[in-house]
Amino acid sequence: MTSDPPSSDAPPAPTSHSPLDDLVGYALRRAQLRLYDDLHATLAAWDMTPARFSALTVIGANPGMKAAVLADTLGIARSGVVVLLNGLQAMGYVTRAVALDDRRTQALRLTREGRSALSAMARAVRAHDRRATDALDDDERRVLLSLLARIG
Amino acid sequence: MTSDPPSSDAPPAPTSHSPLDDLVGYALRRAQLRLYDDLHATLAAWDMTPARFSALTVIGANPGMKAAVLADTLGIARSGVVVLLNGLQAMGYVTRAVALDDRRTQALRLTREGRSALSAMARAVRAHDRRATDALDDDERRVLLSLLARIG
Repeated sequence: MTSDPPSSDAPPAPTSHSPLDDLVGYALRRAQLRLYDDLHATLAAWDMTPARFSALTVIGANPGMKAAVLADTLGIARSGVVVLLNGLQAMGYVTRAVALDDRRTQALRLTREGRSALSAMARAVRAHDRRATDALDDDERRVLLSLLARIG
Repeated sequence: MTSDPPSSDAPPAPTSHSPLDDLVGYALRRAQLRLYDDLHATLAAWDMTPARFSALTVIGANPGMKAAVLADTLGIARSGVVVLLNGLQAMGYVTRAVALDDRRTQALRLTREGRSALSAMARAVRAHDRRATDALDDDERRVLLSLLARIG
């Protein structure tokens, strides 16, 4: 993916992000912004947002997990997780059952339909990730992943 | 910054993020989540959020810029920019004047107080970025920035 060509209402001069352009945190944020549109378009075929897809993926990898743990894992508020889960349940992708070890909480699981949809979405997201990193060779991609794992 | 020690209400097993852990997009997102708490705490001294700080930084680097361009640069909705600008104006950090070339739009500028606060915040955010990447040496940090600039 390259930058979009300038549109007719583009500003005359390029917009400078900031004198903080050399910070890793800023570089992370800008890279994520550049990836976002293509990821959004990739998931739109399933009427999914990146947030819903992340939730579905984490539940798929942690069957029986609790909503509070999902919130912590995704780094979002518990109220936000309730909204996400309501949407995923309405789509028929997720079930909420009373947890065996704590009847006050709910255990989250994918339905058969949820697993099937997730599998197709995951293939599309893998293709998106390859497009986003097609300027890198395999070694560079590995180096990038290894450096990213060491920050924070 | 290292991972927090497990707390008493931590799940018994580590939460697996997903089978997509090897995707660059996921690695970006997870790295950003790990940085977020320290960035949030860093900016709290000025009653700033990361979003407000980003807006302040971009306006500081682009004096006279329009709100619509700010929204595009930050990757957020124009309605969100209005909320951010109301907050920054109430703090006395930003002014909105009628743009000279288009009287329907507003030109954004930092006040003297905004420039002074931004300068202090930027120092604190630089220190945060060093903490977040203290596991990397200078060469690794440069490689990471260069690889991040080539994706998306």
